[in-house]
Amino acid sequence: MEALQAVFSVWFLIGAALVFFMQAGFAMVETGFTRAKNAGNIIMKNLMDFCIGTVAFVLLGGGLLLGEDALGGFIGIPTIGLFNNFESFDWSNFVFNLVFCATAATIVSGAMAERTKFISYCIYSFVISLVIYPIEAHWVWGGGWLSKLGFIDFAGSAAIHTVGGVCALIGAIFLGARLGKYVKDENGKVTKVNAIQGHSIPLGALGCFILWFGWYGFNGAAAKSITELGQIFATTTVAPAVATCVTLLFTWIKNGKPDVSMCLNASLAGLVAITAGCQAVDIIGTIIIGAVSGILVVVVVEMLDLKCHIDDPVGACGVHLANGIWGTIAAGLFATSSSINGVDGPIYALIHGTDFAEGLKVLGVQFLGILAIIAWTAATIIPTFIIIKKTIGLRADAEDELKGLDVTEHGLITAYAGFAQAPEALDYGVIATVGDVPQAEAITVSHLSENDTVIPQTSHASAGAFTKIEIICKERMLDSLKNAMVKIGINGMTVSHVMGCGVQKGKPEYYRGVAVEATLLPKIQVDIVTTSDNVSKAIETAKKTLYTGHIGDGKIFVYDVVNVVKVRTGETGKAALMEAEME
Amino acid sequence: MEALQAVFSVWFLIGAALVFFMQAGFAMVETGFTRAKNAGNIIMKNLMDFCIGTVAFVLLGGGLLLGEDALGGFIGIPTIGLFNNFESFDWSNFVFNLVFCATAATIVSGAMAERTKFISYCIYSFVISLVIYPIEAHWVWGGGWLSKLGFIDFAGSAAIHTVGGVCALIGAIFLGARLGKYVKDENGKVTKVNAIQGHSIPLGALGCFILWFGWYGFNGAAAKSITELGQIFATTTVAPAVATCVTLLFTWIKNGKPDVSMCLNASLAGLVAITAGCQAVDIIGTIIIGAVSGILVVVVVEMLDLKCHIDDPVGACGVHLANGIWGTIAAGLFATSSSINGVDGPIYALIHGTDFAEGLKVLGVQFLGILAIIAWTAATIIPTFIIIKKTIGLRADAEDELKGLDVTEHGLITAYAGFAQAPEALDYGVIATVGDVPQAEAITVSHLSENDTVIPQTSHASAGAFTKIEIICKERMLDSLKNAMVKIGINGMTVSHVMGCGVQKGKPEYYRGVAVEATLLPKIQVDIVTTSDNVSKAIETAKKTLYTGHIGDGKIFVYDVVNVVKVRTGETGKAALMEAEME
Amino acid sequence: MEALQAVFSVWFLIGAALVFFMQAGFAMVETGFTRAKNAGNIIMKNLMDFCIGTVAFVLLGGGLLLGEDALGGFIGIPTIGLFNNFESFDWSNFVFNLVFCATAATIVSGAMAERTKFISYCIYSFVISLVIYPIEAHWVWGGGWLSKLGFIDFAGSAAIHTVGGVCALIGAIFLGARLGKYVKDENGKVTKVNAIQGHSIPLGALGCFILWFGWYGFNGAAAKSITELGQIFATTTVAPAVATCVTLLFTWIKNGKPDVSMCLNASLAGLVAITAGCQAVDIIGTIIIGAVSGILVVVVVEMLDLKCHIDDPVGACGVHLANGIWGTIAAGLFATSSSINGVDGPIYALIHGTDFAEGLKVLGVQFLGILAIIAWTAATIIPTFIIIKKTIGLRADAEDELKGLDVTEHGLITAYAGFAQAPEALDYGVIATVGDVPQAEAITVSHLSENDTVIPQTSHASAGAFTKIEIICKERMLDSLKNAMVKIGINGMTVSHVMGCGVQKGKPEYYRGVAVEATLLPKIQVDIVTTSDNVSKAIETAKKTLYTGHIGDGKIFVYDVVNVVKVRTGETGKAALMEAEME
Repeated sequence: MEALQAVFSVWFLIGAALVFFMQAGFAMVETGFTRAKNAGNIIMKNLMDFCIGTVAFVLLGGGLLLGEDALGGFIGIPTIGLFNNFESFDWSNFVFNLVFCATAATIVSGAMAERTKFISYCIYSFVISLVIYPIEAHWVWGGGWLSKLGFIDFAGSAAIHTVGGVCALIGAIFLGARLGKYVKDENGKVTKVNAIQGHSIPLGALGCFILWFGWYGFNGAAAKSITELGQIFATTTVAPAVATCVTLLFTWIKNGKPDVSMCLNASLAGLVAITAGCQAVDIIGTIIIGAVSGILVVVVVEMLDLKCHIDDPVGACGVHLANGIWGTIAAGLFATSSSINGVDGPIYALIHGTDFAEGLKVLGVQFLGILAIIAWTAATIIPTFIIIKKTIGLRADAEDELKGLDVTEHGLITAYAGFAQAPEALDYGVIATVGDVPQAEAITVSHLSENDTVIPQTSHASAGAFTKIEIICKERMLDSLKNAMVKIGINGMTVSHVMGCGVQKGKPEYYRGVAVEATLLPKIQVDIVTTSDNVSKAIETAKKTLYTGHIGDGKIFVYDVVNVVKVRTGETGKAALMEAEME
Repeated sequence: MEALQAVFSVWFLIGAALVFFMQAGFAMVETGFTRAKNAGNIIMKNLMDFCIGTVAFVLLGGGLLLGEDALGGFIGIPTIGLFNNFESFDWSNFVFNLVFCATAATIVSGAMAERTKFISYCIYSFVISLVIYPIEAHWVWGGGWLSKLGFIDFAGSAAIHTVGGVCALIGAIFLGARLGKYVKDENGKVTKVNAIQGHSIPLGALGCFILWFGWYGFNGAAAKSITELGQIFATTTVAPAVATCVTLLFTWIKNGKPDVSMCLNASLAGLVAITAGCQAVDIIGTIIIGAVSGILVVVVVEMLDLKCHIDDPVGACGVHLANGIWGTIAAGLFATSSSINGVDGPIYALIHGTDFAEGLKVLGVQFLGILAIIAWTAATIIPTFIIIKKTIGLRADAEDELKGLDVTEHGLITAYAGFAQAPEALDYGVIATVGDVPQAEAITVSHLSENDTVIPQTSHASAGAFTKIEIICKERMLDSLKNAMVKIGINGMTVSHVMGCGVQKGKPEYYRGVAVEATLLPKIQVDIVTTSDNVSKAIETAKKTLYTGHIGDGKIFVYDVVNVVKVRTGETGKAALMEAEME
Repeated sequence: MEALQAVFSVWFLIGAALVFFMQAGFAMVETGFTRAKNAGNIIMKNLMDFCIGTVAFVLLGGGLLLGEDALGGFIGIPTIGLFNNFESFDWSNFVFNLVFCATAATIVSGAMAERTKFISYCIYSFVISLVIYPIEAHWVWGGGWLSKLGFIDFAGSAAIHTVGGVCALIGAIFLGARLGKYVKDENGKVTKVNAIQGHSIPLGALGCFILWFGWYGFNGAAAKSITELGQIFATTTVAPAVATCVTLLFTWIKNGKPDVSMCLNASLAGLVAITAGCQAVDIIGTIIIGAVSGILVVVVVEMLDLKCHIDDPVGACGVHLANGIWGTIAAGLFATSSSINGVDGPIYALIHGTDFAEGLKVLGVQFLGILAIIAWTAATIIPTFIIIKKTIGLRADAEDELKGLDVTEHGLITAYAGFAQAPEALDYGVIATVGDVPQAEAITVSHLSENDTVIPQTSHASAGAFTKIEIICKERMLDSLKNAMVKIGINGMTVSHVMGCGVQKGKPEYYRGVAVEATLLPKIQVDIVTTSDNVSKAIETAKKTLYTGHIGDGKIFVYDVVNVVKVRTGETGKAALMEAEME
């Protein structure tokens, strides 16, 4: 007997270690699905939410969750046994609950990635682990009122994922979208949604695999028999597998090609959805739960982005919120009578002819529980965000966001030293649009009068039949420059990534305590070869487009060109320049 | 007693979770050892073979493997207990066998990487998990005929790795090599073998470490005593360690330098080889098995590539097929009497003076088993490939393969957004050779008559003593261009990576449901400075070399150069251009 | 009873597997925190120390550690039971100790990264696993003299981390710093400390998470009760969490920004520090141990680098040595009476009023133990390094180090094929300074007499108002070139990464047995536009700066420029060139 208990007690802690490892999964998913310039920052957030959360949980959270039930099942009463009774304190249970708490907190960072102030992140992450999560988790797992009602949430579709998802959604709304994500017209209406691609799909995928692996601990750790554990492993395998297959087919049909990042999201969606009922539903229920979650994640991710214009870089809301809710309700729908509360949910009650009214009651408790948890989370996280926003601010400065949070928040010049980074603007469509960039709104072009003779040597330039205009400017101006050139009929240009070199000014950044001199700044060089009669117009246009009045607006160099040949047609001279060709 | 059983039952499931985690290992190995342009595709394949395999295994495969024995040990009879008897179905065993099944399927993707159509991959992966693997695994582990003969294959050198390896080899042969891998003369004889380097050795190495870690579950999960488990952990540690040391020395002696990717392969080779006999051989046997596998993997990988011209990008055949066979036979050679069938294999029978004839019988069964498994696998996978090839096709279009399967199969423009990718041709010797690229065979240069005056300005150009020819063209043409220039005596040039910019045409790709505009296409710029008398010839040569008649053949710009200085010699002018210098 | 034993015996082996997985963590941390050009080499070192260490441990090390105690507790007597008594040998214990041994060895590679000869690494790694580690580990865990004194080192702050750390520190001193790390004046005094940034913070972070995950096995594997295991999990979670929070605040206050890589180091520091006393200290002790380690790691890392000028690329000394010592002493200070030796350490003896003298004795043994272990390690590793240095040499050639150990030691041209690598010199301040590069000391500029007319065309050049000087040279010369240009008043230039292309000479490298032709070599192109009166001086300066007399010194091309426009001011011509602008 004692030995049997020991088996599951050791497995309980192994499960806790697996749940800890999910932090690595979250860190990799969020890093992979965001941009390289914020990689250090998002890793730091994932590391700190665990570390800060541990401190919060030791200080108060653990007590609120695990303490003796009070206020009619609302909270646990913290004790100081943690500090003065090391010998007999139940540390296994404490560590187990601690790693779950950290999971709830870490979900939020994905939806709020790439634009949240680091200090604000630390604060609300602390608050989540200190009170928001522990109190509602007490309801579900600490002997609180929901547990007394027979609420089914074995491993936390509601208590963890929905809580994390609600904070994520509200946080994303409070913050607003990343610069350049949505292009708006003068009335604030979104006219275009840009894709901002993650910088490392392999790391993101690795994170998903790690999460799935850890999920066997997440769902299974609390199992109390071999039969139950085997069932949990089965549901935890089949639901995400089905979800991923469904998403594969769904995106294939919808977009014409099976989508990689959506399929990775779908695995997680299936895992979230099966979490509440992983020990309560049978294989048919599991398959249905998985299949629905595979559709749900795609629909919600696209709806939030394309319709609601809520910017959730890693799809945290689609994965954790939508499927957390779905999983909680589904556990009620598909619960079998052998599950914890001994009653079939309505679906099986109907099929098996058992008590349908009882089945509906099971479902009713699920609805009550999920609503109560959403309400509690919203009611506590909203004031938290408001207070942060009114005091230190929730969102990073626009200039910091454009430069990337690695360098501005942490002094980390790049998380990938030694790799040539493509200018962000070269990132195929991922372009910060000028109208959306606050500091660029100050552009005034009026002082560039039409009479400025920018090219006094035009006469000289026309001596050669063609002229090359070489423009060195900031990376983020590429899109504007390109559009301006296309408008005046120049639609062929060559872009390359160069480094501007100069004497450094200002405060250095530190890498491991050592000052780092940034004397080379990334720039782009745009080469345009045009006929000499176009040169004045092209230079004038470039000047107007690039001008902001700030240091670093760039330079334009003009060269003679002897001749031009277009390979495909064999044309030379002016004819060769007529039309830009893309592969 | 019950508790003791519980210990190994929980460990059995922990082992299953570790085997699941090996999917992450396979994904990282295959991603790291292939090119960045296919990273999303190979990850998707690794994800989907598990997910699709799960569906196949639930539908039929699990029943064929685990069902009651029939047809004289040939198959198990599937039941529907899975669906209608959730409570008493042996889910632990099911999940355990499911994750092993997925391992067999995932091996194939490595050998067929970078050129297999995604839909075809999904189909044959489904077939492997549906029937090919389950039936032969029933022979070995499901109570089938091989298990009755005492066939030793504790964790699957034969049943998993050889099966995966046979499919991998046959698949690689059916597909043919990646474009650019082998240069052939007009008779189809291979005149040169190109190395196509993997894009991330660190990710590949991480994958190897994850696989080794997971292998403790793979080999150990089915152990039934502490003694046995300790032995398995020992053999599973020593064999790969010895294999890696042997490969280190072997490649060091053979090539003059110890090879990184071969040593990583060697760890896996040692693990594959010890898998069959991990509980049957002692430490001396383990050391020999490991040492042989360290040689074997190198010899087979190189033989397949350099002699047989079979293109296996990640070495799956060398690792899984060669060492799966070796490990199965070695288990027979080195089995100790304490292993499952209680008889020493021939080696120990000889040494210990026990029954040598019985020992030979042990070995004989191993040969019989491995041959039967190879024959079964070949007999089922060949028709599968043939049917796929004849209907939807097995191989991606050449153009898709050149562009990369990420964008063509999944609409993922890049798996590494924000990183400047070196042009493939810059990938140090990894160059798609024109003669091997189908669509390039259509090149006709006849219409470029000798009389075309491509440089009417030659007179003007000669005014300057030197001329710079700037060629913008497709990345893949670099090698041809370089060779053509060397032939006419120009052997110094500067190559850089630029982006061609133009107005987009055609259908957009989608990233997470959002259209992505690809208005910047990777090109290379080749700068050649030459004396003016060479200009005509150089331009003419470039034109002929680059001409295909398709959009995007490129442009050539011509500039005057004032002077040239060669730093080392201090020479200026023409003398400075005489000879190209490499570091 | 038997079953209860089985529970902890299985967990013991699971713990061993987790400790094995820490090899992946070390590999990723060390890879991420060093440069891309050495990524394959550092991975190879991490792989081989495990594999070579296994061979050494099988041959002798295991026997020295686990054999019957002899020489008054100094060593164990190896037996050959390993080889001839497979059945009854305690393989669990052997594997467990083997993976710990490999951990001690692998710590060293980080501090000695990027400049140690690979063969020398293999040799000293073999020696550590063969004798250095096994003998002192016998003292602590094999029934040796320290264990008899009641030395507290549950999982190896002293026996593993301090040993690894001492070897790391001595190795780093023996080797000297990486080229370019410290700039020295003519007297050998360090005038500047350069930061050499790691090439992948995400991989480094992943490594840290893997290490933390594995540490639950590292610290917990030897637990013998559920209570103890729960306590160990708690201390192993809280100490690193507190350490990381303290480092967050400490670096935030000190540098103005919270440092990413230091926080990652801090997690490891907290883990190292809690390792000795993980089962002996209570939560208050854990918090204090963690907090101190969070400060200690930063102070030691910076002190070693900035004050002692000892180059430890990944902070191995700060993490493992400083915190190994701190953790060992702290275990004595904070031990509770319920820990293994039943006596409160002095801190709790004081608070609880129990026997203070006994408490001091506990502490005394800790000091004795840590000093003995440090002395033993130093006394054995120093001769090892001296012999290696005097025979085959410890350090890679300077030229090899500059090119990177991947290509020079392993023939791996790049670990990241297909990615454009920024020239090292572009790596924001990470610049190999000429004065520190041995082979560059041979520069003699005397033969460039002032009378050389490098620009006979100066008259022609002055025809255009401006001239563009295009310099193609080796990457590593960028810093010198930049400084030289700034000195003569040219402080604006554009740098880009190009490939020099030429006909290959010399021996090819091999990738998986296939020859790889390196016909494209990375170079940088520096473009300077200047007024024509400056051209001679600029070219002369470039020539002098770049001249080494070796192949590959570079070329300089000169072009006319028609005009220049500065966007911000609208200035054209000479005025536009007056001042370089950085963003």
